[in-house]
Amino acid sequence: MVDILHRIGATASADAVYAALTTVDGLADWWTRDTAGDTEVGGVIRFRFGPGGFDMKVLEAEPAERVLWEVVDGPEEWIGTRIRFDLKREDDYTVVVFRHEGWREPVEFMYHCSTKWATFLLSLKKLVETGKGDPAPQDVRISNWH
Amino acid sequence: MVDILHRIGATASADAVYAALTTVDGLADWWTRDTAGDTEVGGVIRFRFGPGGFDMKVLEAEPAERVLWEVVDGPEEWIGTRIRFDLKREDDYTVVVFRHEGWREPVEFMYHCSTKWATFLLSLKKLVETGKGDPAPQDVRISNWH
Repeated sequence: MVDILHRIGATASADAVYAALTTVDGLADWWTRDTAGDTEVGGVIRFRFGPGGFDMKVLEAEPAERVLWEVVDGPEEWIGTRIRFDLKREDDYTVVVFRHEGWREPVEFMYHCSTKWATFLLSLKKLVETGKGDPAPQDVRISNWH
Repeated sequence: MVDILHRIGATASADAVYAALTTVDGLADWWTRDTAGDTEVGGVIRFRFGPGGFDMKVLEAEPAERVLWEVVDGPEEWIGTRIRFDLKREDDYTVVVFRHEGWREPVEFMYHCSTKWATFLLSLKKLVETGKGDPAPQDVRISNWH
């Protein structure tokens, strides 16, 4: 099992970051405009990106501390993996320690997703710091795979 | 052992990307301005970033195909790890499949380095596509750890 790891810090409150991870409007403002569903624990959030997307079941949501999702539909390599956002305050920053865990194999698609996650986490940082992120379909293009 | 994985694609030739990985001027234009040393196989390249930096021994350099370094000095967590750039042509892009491999533990610093690598690889992409990258000290700030 292999994991994608990232860490960003934003000069915004933990509550503001948590809201961007646990509301449809917040998620739509940094990950993908086409976000819908139920962001409460036990709910399923549907993220769509042009041709495809992901359905995430919310397993944990601790205000200002942690959000954990399990991928219940999407690309075969993603199904059953988990996406974890751990929040903490440090040096006037809210730090997000991110893990997309449980990949079965380090396929080339995983390399791509690792870089894309970095760009989306920087979009989250930009959103909570400035009020404007870079969600799909206006996301950062990184390669021929988009 | 855990690895950092990334994948980017640039609309530039494999020779141009290879040059940006194997010349002091090229490396200084996307990673850090403070780059010096010998980029030939067996040589050591010194990368410096304000307070610290890394010394890399060049283990492999296959034109337009692969560059492999081993970290011989720097932060304790980096020493002995390897950094690999595999190049290939795909859909009019030069794709860089990147791996920073051999971390002993997924310490929080590794999460940080994963996100920073993404920003530097996007700086490499920008350099070969536009002629101007974002090397340190003008690199993208991602958190309280810079």
